[in-house]
Amino acid sequence: MEIKTNWWGWGDVRKTYDLTRRHDFWPHLRSRLNIPDQPILPPPSMEEINISASRLSQAVLEQLKNYLPAAKIDLSKETRLSHTYGKSYHDLIRIRRRIFPQAPDAVLFPGNEKELEKIVAWAAENEIALVPWGGGTSVVGGVEATVSENQKGLVALDLKRMNRVIKIDRESMLADCEAGIRGPKLEQELQKSGLTLSHYPESFEYSSLGGWVATRSAGQQSTKYGKIEEMVESIRLITPTGWIETPHVPAAANGPDLDQLMIGSEGILGVISRVRIRLKSIPEQRFYTALLFRSFQDGGAVVRKILQSGILPATIRLSDAEETDFIFSLVEEKTNRLANGFQKIGLKYLEKRGFFPQKRSFMILGLEGTAASIKADWQQIRKIARPYKPFNLGKSAARQWYDHRFENPYLRDILMNYDILVDTLETATEWENFWNLYEAGRKAILDSFEKLGIKGVVTVHLSHVYPAGTSLYFIILATPHVGEELNEWWEIKRMASDAIVSNGGTISHHHGIGLDHRPWLTRELGASGVGIMRNFKNALDPKGIMNPGKLLPDD
Amino acid sequence: MEIKTNWWGWGDVRKTYDLTRRHDFWPHLRSRLNIPDQPILPPPSMEEINISASRLSQAVLEQLKNYLPAAKIDLSKETRLSHTYGKSYHDLIRIRRRIFPQAPDAVLFPGNEKELEKIVAWAAENEIALVPWGGGTSVVGGVEATVSENQKGLVALDLKRMNRVIKIDRESMLADCEAGIRGPKLEQELQKSGLTLSHYPESFEYSSLGGWVATRSAGQQSTKYGKIEEMVESIRLITPTGWIETPHVPAAANGPDLDQLMIGSEGILGVISRVRIRLKSIPEQRFYTALLFRSFQDGGAVVRKILQSGILPATIRLSDAEETDFIFSLVEEKTNRLANGFQKIGLKYLEKRGFFPQKRSFMILGLEGTAASIKADWQQIRKIARPYKPFNLGKSAARQWYDHRFENPYLRDILMNYDILVDTLETATEWENFWNLYEAGRKAILDSFEKLGIKGVVTVHLSHVYPAGTSLYFIILATPHVGEELNEWWEIKRMASDAIVSNGGTISHHHGIGLDHRPWLTRELGASGVGIMRNFKNALDPKGIMNPGKLLPDD
Repeated sequence: MEIKTNWWGWGDVRKTYDLTRRHDFWPHLRSRLNIPDQPILPPPSMEEINISASRLSQAVLEQLKNYLPAAKIDLSKETRLSHTYGKSYHDLIRIRRRIFPQAPDAVLFPGNEKELEKIVAWAAENEIALVPWGGGTSVVGGVEATVSENQKGLVALDLKRMNRVIKIDRESMLADCEAGIRGPKLEQELQKSGLTLSHYPESFEYSSLGGWVATRSAGQQSTKYGKIEEMVESIRLITPTGWIETPHVPAAANGPDLDQLMIGSEGILGVISRVRIRLKSIPEQRFYTALLFRSFQDGGAVVRKILQSGILPATIRLSDAEETDFIFSLVEEKTNRLANGFQKIGLKYLEKRGFFPQKRSFMILGLEGTAASIKADWQQIRKIARPYKPFNLGKSAARQWYDHRFENPYLRDILMNYDILVDTLETATEWENFWNLYEAGRKAILDSFEKLGIKGVVTVHLSHVYPAGTSLYFIILATPHVGEELNEWWEIKRMASDAIVSNGGTISHHHGIGLDHRPWLTRELGASGVGIMRNFKNALDPKGIMNPGKLLPDD
Repeated sequence: MEIKTNWWGWGDVRKTYDLTRRHDFWPHLRSRLNIPDQPILPPPSMEEINISASRLSQAVLEQLKNYLPAAKIDLSKETRLSHTYGKSYHDLIRIRRRIFPQAPDAVLFPGNEKELEKIVAWAAENEIALVPWGGGTSVVGGVEATVSENQKGLVALDLKRMNRVIKIDRESMLADCEAGIRGPKLEQELQKSGLTLSHYPESFEYSSLGGWVATRSAGQQSTKYGKIEEMVESIRLITPTGWIETPHVPAAANGPDLDQLMIGSEGILGVISRVRIRLKSIPEQRFYTALLFRSFQDGGAVVRKILQSGILPATIRLSDAEETDFIFSLVEEKTNRLANGFQKIGLKYLEKRGFFPQKRSFMILGLEGTAASIKADWQQIRKIARPYKPFNLGKSAARQWYDHRFENPYLRDILMNYDILVDTLETATEWENFWNLYEAGRKAILDSFEKLGIKGVVTVHLSHVYPAGTSLYFIILATPHVGEELNEWWEIKRMASDAIVSNGGTISHHHGIGLDHRPWLTRELGASGVGIMRNFKNALDPKGIMNPGKLLPDD
């Protein structure tokens, strides 16, 4: 049975984030932000929103019906509305403010590559823009309905019917999959064969394999298993000038790596229709625990040393002081998991030991492998951490994170009822530049709050880690002036992004460029780097119908 | 002091391959090939070879002297001759047959990026082709002096003066290096800081960092440390349309990966001038041992299972029966290393245990890491191998391989004195296709011997291994008809390459495309894949001066 998803917010309409057993959360949040007593920004109903009529002519639609069953050409308001935006704050605030300047003129649901090819040819012939659509969970405007003037319409190309695992090659531990398959179905089918991809982005339940590949996605276990770009053996890409399939080999010296040109192409070159993915055996054992450090600096040094010792934890996730306080405010009381640990030892005792609020730093550490490898790694990690004297909060504290690791976006929907701005920014840098970028990013965001005259908080964690450096994930919570959300969001985003790129960070570690990050891409890659991409785009999509306006900056 | 290298053969002119303590080798070889009693094809002397005069006009040279000291513009016959070919059999047989239709019109030795940029601009202005030159060890014609009709000359651009480690960032374990640095100097400088790149191709002593990157090189420890493409953080590329430097970040979601476009570009887009490389700590311990299996099939199954269990041996190298017999024929008698093992247990005993000549399969296994990780890995490997009952030949047998691992090319020079054809072909495929490709490749080569009416042997090993598949390395030894070496070499190469590409292998796993593999590239990548590369080339090098004729097939 298909899950009914929420068009104005996150995920399954039947689910929410459960705050009932987290009594510390609202008081903590209210101490930092200007929050109204009651919700002031309710989600919209579809009736409140007007969208313009579909621009597709009857003739063009008739032509399309030669290639695609009429039932798979959806012109309904409901479907068009739910395919207008992704799932960023920028998207959701526009939905709540009922801002819908454009919607796709239709949503198409091809069932196979043949239909997909025909649709792309039809679109090219009729100068209709195509937005490839996987789970629609982009947080950078990657699937927004934006059409340029020289196009006669725009359709969203929803691949959800193309969701099969076509073949599992157990001997080579590979699987051929249609690009529209989403996380849960994919893992379910692989795990039946004792295999796993182990790619778990926060959007896992709703995002698709094709979307992961198109955006260079990273999962919560990427430190061990790599970003999606390391899991791809071969890609089939359907472009307006024909299709390309990369060789089926584990490695080669056959010129530039064409897979790596398609990975991260965000739909602007064509539609990823099929991916051959590299699998692993399901790990024999998993060991997740939580440690507390006296400072983010201490924890950061330990993370770096672990990675540089050659150990690859599945998960290593370190929160700065501000985020650690939020995590503590979200501890569930009833389950007594993290709470248990604290009740036992007492918060006062922790402070006596030097673990202070606004200073201490929370780490989730997850090891996966054989019993022997986990034992050896854990031994060495303890040795590395020992000089910093962390406090071991134990498995139950880690369990709480693990069990709720896909749920944060539901909390955002609750906060947005109170007109709280909730955004995230993610970057990466080399270790040598880590503290500089951390400070500069935080300062820029705090400065933006001050400039705007609003209250706000910024929390940071690192969660995708490398021997050479780390990702940095900023979460922004603020209370903008009512009605000024969009402008104020953009000002925060602009100041933060300027600071990130000026201080040696990438504009995105795993969310992608989409619409929102384009203004910084040239600064990061140089005009020549962007020129190479533009050239690539022009060669494969000379009419510019593929996901127009995304990834590439305006000339 | 600079090593004097051999212009007609391999490496250091003072070195050779020592056969004096390997009495079994010639008898074994003579039993398989048609070898003359005495050397019949001596290396040439420079005096015997005529090359045409440099086509560079005085005016063009004068212009160049504004950018490069006159002493670094070399027009001598000796230098031009030694920059005409790489180090393939195809190259060395032409040298021995005194075939020099072209030589570069000059060899330039820039000392820094500024000079390099000026030279590239000068070449573009004067329509002179440039061949970027690192160690000159290409075995696929990657550095051959080939100029097309519309160019007014060709110069080799030798980067050997650009050989500095510019900066080591110990905190991030990164180093910025000039591209011309060669293996030994690079490792020496890194190891002073306790760090290593651990990239050890057979050409290690003479090849350069820039060359490794330009060709997607693989080292003998690539199974653990990855091919060179996984060791690159950032590249600076000087092209005829300007220079590009990729971002300094460990990972990003900023569109297609431009590093992976430059890696493997084989000089056709520009000159790689600088590379930021990712380093490791020098491993605490190394454990190398040798195992003997009853068959290549048995050994192959064990290799696959080891990789798929999550273990990454630094080296895992498995020889088929034919190669195993050659390895045994090359055992040094005086040192008694591998021999000792055999003396103890006795060859007859081995046969009694089912390890037969023409059947048994030799494995080198190398583990690197901490004492604890090596112990855990070795324990698990023994468990995986146990059902196949291998014989442990011990560390001394592995030591023999390790100590001589860069020396095989010297043996080729000895064999060529007897007009023995010595070539290698390398490919990779997924495990499911491994045996098929192994059989098809061998059959095609054996068929080519039969067709040509010559004696020959083909040996195979796998040495770069992945969870999804493996490389396959074919060594060909044959005795062509005297005077027909070039034609017969090409016929063997053609038949083997056809079989490889028709049977799902890549045309190259780590040697590259160069001139020799171009005819198969379109079959591997499709016309659209090649079209993408051609498009890049035209954008960055519109006049086509960069390494003309390499990588891209003729239209």
